[in-house]
Amino acid sequence: MINLASDNVMGASQQVLEALIAANHGAEAAYGSDHHTAEAEEMLAEVFEHEVKVFLVATGTGANALALAALSPPWGAIFCHEESHVADDECGAPEMFTDGAKLIGLPGLNGKFTAERLETAIARYPKGVVKAVQPAAISISQVTESGTLYSLEEIARIAEVARKHDLGLHLDGARFANALVSLGCTPAEMTWKAGIDVVSFGATKNGCLACEAVVFFDPARAEHFPFRRKRSGHTLSKGRLLGAQMSAYLRNNHWLDNARHANAMAKRLVDGLSTLPGVRTPWSTQANEVFAVLPKSTAKSLADAGVRAAPWYELSVSLSPDQKIGSNEVFWRFVTNFETKAEHIDQVIALAKG
Amino acid sequence: MINLASDNVMGASQQVLEALIAANHGAEAAYGSDHHTAEAEEMLAEVFEHEVKVFLVATGTGANALALAALSPPWGAIFCHEESHVADDECGAPEMFTDGAKLIGLPGLNGKFTAERLETAIARYPKGVVKAVQPAAISISQVTESGTLYSLEEIARIAEVARKHDLGLHLDGARFANALVSLGCTPAEMTWKAGIDVVSFGATKNGCLACEAVVFFDPARAEHFPFRRKRSGHTLSKGRLLGAQMSAYLRNNHWLDNARHANAMAKRLVDGLSTLPGVRTPWSTQANEVFAVLPKSTAKSLADAGVRAAPWYELSVSLSPDQKIGSNEVFWRFVTNFETKAEHIDQVIALAKG
Amino acid sequence: MINLASDNVMGASQQVLEALIAANHGAEAAYGSDHHTAEAEEMLAEVFEHEVKVFLVATGTGANALALAALSPPWGAIFCHEESHVADDECGAPEMFTDGAKLIGLPGLNGKFTAERLETAIARYPKGVVKAVQPAAISISQVTESGTLYSLEEIARIAEVARKHDLGLHLDGARFANALVSLGCTPAEMTWKAGIDVVSFGATKNGCLACEAVVFFDPARAEHFPFRRKRSGHTLSKGRLLGAQMSAYLRNNHWLDNARHANAMAKRLVDGLSTLPGVRTPWSTQANEVFAVLPKSTAKSLADAGVRAAPWYELSVSLSPDQKIGSNEVFWRFVTNFETKAEHIDQVIALAKG
Amino acid sequence: MINLASDNVMGASQQVLEALIAANHGAEAAYGSDHHTAEAEEMLAEVFEHEVKVFLVATGTGANALALAALSPPWGAIFCHEESHVADDECGAPEMFTDGAKLIGLPGLNGKFTAERLETAIARYPKGVVKAVQPAAISISQVTESGTLYSLEEIARIAEVARKHDLGLHLDGARFANALVSLGCTPAEMTWKAGIDVVSFGATKNGCLACEAVVFFDPARAEHFPFRRKRSGHTLSKGRLLGAQMSAYLRNNHWLDNARHANAMAKRLVDGLSTLPGVRTPWSTQANEVFAVLPKSTAKSLADAGVRAAPWYELSVSLSPDQKIGSNEVFWRFVTNFETKAEHIDQVIALAKG
Repeated sequence: MINLASDNVMGASQQVLEALIAANHGAEAAYGSDHHTAEAEEMLAEVFEHEVKVFLVATGTGANALALAALSPPWGAIFCHEESHVADDECGAPEMFTDGAKLIGLPGLNGKFTAERLETAIARYPKGVVKAVQPAAISISQVTESGTLYSLEEIARIAEVARKHDLGLHLDGARFANALVSLGCTPAEMTWKAGIDVVSFGATKNGCLACEAVVFFDPARAEHFPFRRKRSGHTLSKGRLLGAQMSAYLRNNHWLDNARHANAMAKRLVDGLSTLPGVRTPWSTQANEVFAVLPKSTAKSLADAGVRAAPWYELSVSLSPDQKIGSNEVFWRFVTNFETKAEHIDQVIALAKG
Repeated sequence: MINLASDNVMGASQQVLEALIAANHGAEAAYGSDHHTAEAEEMLAEVFEHEVKVFLVATGTGANALALAALSPPWGAIFCHEESHVADDECGAPEMFTDGAKLIGLPGLNGKFTAERLETAIARYPKGVVKAVQPAAISISQVTESGTLYSLEEIARIAEVARKHDLGLHLDGARFANALVSLGCTPAEMTWKAGIDVVSFGATKNGCLACEAVVFFDPARAEHFPFRRKRSGHTLSKGRLLGAQMSAYLRNNHWLDNARHANAMAKRLVDGLSTLPGVRTPWSTQANEVFAVLPKSTAKSLADAGVRAAPWYELSVSLSPDQKIGSNEVFWRFVTNFETKAEHIDQVIALAKG
Repeated sequence: MINLASDNVMGASQQVLEALIAANHGAEAAYGSDHHTAEAEEMLAEVFEHEVKVFLVATGTGANALALAALSPPWGAIFCHEESHVADDECGAPEMFTDGAKLIGLPGLNGKFTAERLETAIARYPKGVVKAVQPAAISISQVTESGTLYSLEEIARIAEVARKHDLGLHLDGARFANALVSLGCTPAEMTWKAGIDVVSFGATKNGCLACEAVVFFDPARAEHFPFRRKRSGHTLSKGRLLGAQMSAYLRNNHWLDNARHANAMAKRLVDGLSTLPGVRTPWSTQANEVFAVLPKSTAKSLADAGVRAAPWYELSVSLSPDQKIGSNEVFWRFVTNFETKAEHIDQVIALAKG
Repeated sequence: MINLASDNVMGASQQVLEALIAANHGAEAAYGSDHHTAEAEEMLAEVFEHEVKVFLVATGTGANALALAALSPPWGAIFCHEESHVADDECGAPEMFTDGAKLIGLPGLNGKFTAERLETAIARYPKGVVKAVQPAAISISQVTESGTLYSLEEIARIAEVARKHDLGLHLDGARFANALVSLGCTPAEMTWKAGIDVVSFGATKNGCLACEAVVFFDPARAEHFPFRRKRSGHTLSKGRLLGAQMSAYLRNNHWLDNARHANAMAKRLVDGLSTLPGVRTPWSTQANEVFAVLPKSTAKSLADAGVRAAPWYELSVSLSPDQKIGSNEVFWRFVTNFETKAEHIDQVIALAKG
């Protein structure tokens, strides 16, 4: 079986696993006061070239929901892409953690919304008008749910809108590393220099087992976070589990190497698939995800041969009308990861070729 | 340093760590559909000799809050000991997860409340009286926050009240194994046979890194649990992390061996401390926790020598009036664990002896 | 001043006011156990020709939010028009009362969505898929936010989708009477016969001071409602205030007479305005609201003469592209009520004529 | 029937009713922007001799829950008497409106807790300790649930604790006027001069139909209140209903006259009952409530003759051990109001005398 359904199907990378083993020995203070967590926090400050407030948690949904709760009151509006993970794939976690804020889903091709569309949406909820939920935050995903990227300019334009309306700007970086190496910029450039206030810095998909960091660039925004994290059950008692993963993940550019590999495998896959008749890739492959429209017969061959991909939402608003999925087609997502083997990719392409 | 402040200061046991390493290899379905989780579920069914619905999570607070949310509507009352973990040590997680249910804290010596006191409390909130929150659930801790145990008879009496008023009965088993080996009964006897509906089955403190199971004996009560877990960010994407821990924890009675060791170390400690002049242990040591009232001078010697214990709440309602902490005394909790060394215990006793 | 900004600008009708005066005398049981409330409940059963569970509250937002909370769990999805009152004009009340359910706003011209569009939206949230909020309810407004009406056939088609997916169907009837007399059907036909499960039966705008009824046709759905109402502070202690208003409102077809008058005044207004050059009414006037696009100069004349209307949202998705508001135009809502005078309407028309 | 079960059994006073009638005529701006509301706000500023932020709502539960939500985050602790209205009689409204804050019920005789007991309770939840909910607010009732009063000195001592720990201090004044005339002080003295931050200023029980004001002395605390009120459905569209009641209530000392009358009637009742053999009044009658322990035979005579009182909670913690209710006794609450007739009181006494 070649499992490309998700980057969650792999365990930890060897480097992360070894760090877990090494960190297991001896007594450590509980609840995140351990040395490994402290080290991870310092490393993230270096990575971002900025003072940061860091909170490690075990899941991306926890990270996103806690981050958004730090930005929005219960009567707040949080603007995001209509098909973003926070809007559609977390079973309402942001609504739970914010105590009922409203996520305003914006349409947009390729998994992205524009600053202009954002402005229009904000105008619907005027500040101070009591019947309207109050604009509070914006959340963008980098990598997006369509496997695409916002350019630094696009982020900056959205950030400008955020500043203009005094909204917090959150970046869901479940695949932060994959985006970063693709853009070829620094973590600082992709975040606070572009106007991001809070990052869900994902590590699970790219080498860890269960580790994400919520990273604040302004400590004031993090004031109540320790209570929110504890209250939601996301403060691990044996904090070393998180601290050891994150510090190992960051050490010696391990995270960047992992992401580069995964991205390269995705490129190899998309390059191979694109040449095949009847195969379309409506969204450009900018990181480690390939979204492909395949003839049903091709899909069947792959499935029969044990290739696993994730059937995708065929009515996605991120598809333009001329990209509609036909009745003889399927829409599949392939995700590569830090351990994906080139020969597996080649096998998939060969199988698709038939 | 000899750290007896908590059973959270240790990492994983060797057996659990090795299982994590072994489970790391290869692709596995995400979000708890992996083989390790399936195995853990089967093993828990065997452990409890009952059909069970099992949900693995990474934290005890997550487990407790999710379990209580399955038992109580937002307008429900949940009866528990006034100083229970759910009432006092989870920053209001049960209130968050139940969307605002009310925890009714019952007083009681030794960390326990009685069936009689419970009846009185329930009477305050008559069923159908709209202004009153509605009795919905009872939560007991086994081991209690005072390191003591409910006897099977005491649990059964509380369960009788639960049945009489149609309330769900939750057992917070953060130290389930320590209680079990101390009582010398079976998991079934301490739970569903005694009338328990849902268990927070703790494994973190006794050998895992981050793993707890919410165990339901009636699948109907678990109907909405998958959504609650996902929505609260407690569904790990790489479910093998939890599944591998739990199955290793249960394999070959590892969990019971660990608990027996920890309990023996606690007994060794309390036996040694009890003989010392000026030292009192107001709550009997029934599991792996020793609560000791020490002369300040003794405490200072221990602290100076690098012994870590947890200062405890001196105004605890679980202390009887004649057990009050004097002005020259401190109240400390010592917790032993699966790796605590006998020579360390002896060292502590020797240091306390002065 | 001629105030047509809202139907909330008037007090109570004479008949309702007199009932309040009459009901004021003597002792009555509190919290809705009074005779007036009982009478109102009986009258609503007659009005709807069905067994009903009735809960009186003082506000439309309270009625809607409580009704939706009865239909959706916190992880539920509630489908409604993108610009419906529950979605946009209640500051997130449905999210608060449901403890964080997600309102899925559907686009649609004329303030209405179609059964087809609804089906597409539901498909995005498959039942049993844990990451997706779970389809739970549908809410339609009758009169819509665009002053239009769903035909009985349109309601029935939406109800079919509701039944197919086992979703509760809510009707926001803030202007129930205005819709009813316009359609010329019975209350039963516009509700349970068409497949509606719960109605927010508005009375405030059409003759009361503060009175709405939440009406359930299936008592099982109302099981927890008394606790929800109390817990949200919507159970009035002196229930006669609500009971007396509602029974007076319904007596001798007072509510229908009021609605007929208001609708007739709106028709008079729209008929007058339509003939004027440069004036457009993009949404058809089916009840007591006229939405008019006016030249700025006309609007200024009206405002200067003391005519009050409500500036409307110019980017409304209920406008088709060819109905866009021009830069020399304004978009205004005029609302007539049970006391609106024909001569005032004529005055407005004359002023608009210039 | 003589109904003394509650002060909610009466309608509006004549003065208030007439004001409602007078206010009914003509168009008024909606949602609290009407002239009557403006007038009520000004009058309350005069009553309190202080700048105030005033929010009118229709219910006491709404007022209390909204006020507490303005003082406490979801992870906050709100200290109140164990049997206070907010703790026991609002079906968890404070928990709902605060999104899950924890009400810490303090014991205390006569419906009151002491500053000392409060200090002990606060010590249990240290500021900054993440596992503990964070002390946020204190709520006292004046009149208490036992019909007693805090002296100004007692309030000041509690306020001192509030200031020391930086906690907001709320006064539940459902019977504010009854307390005020009993103490013979000014509204300022009973509130901000004594250290109160927010008042639920009740008017419903003492002459209105449905009207309470939440009064803030520091506008900063009220910053988000408009959104909270709207979002909870407590912003009435026809605001004149509330504004007209409140301004009439305050005009010409009407509210104080009403309260004086009610208190006098209670005094007349308690004076009469006290002389009867076998009758005890465990809590002193300081306002308009008489709590009496009656022989069952006496109670039967009263009930048979059509006297209505409210059976009270016999296990109340506000009773000292020597005040326990015997098996041949009942515990009843009698409440007088602004319209209670002296001859009715005398009749009750005569009936009790038997």
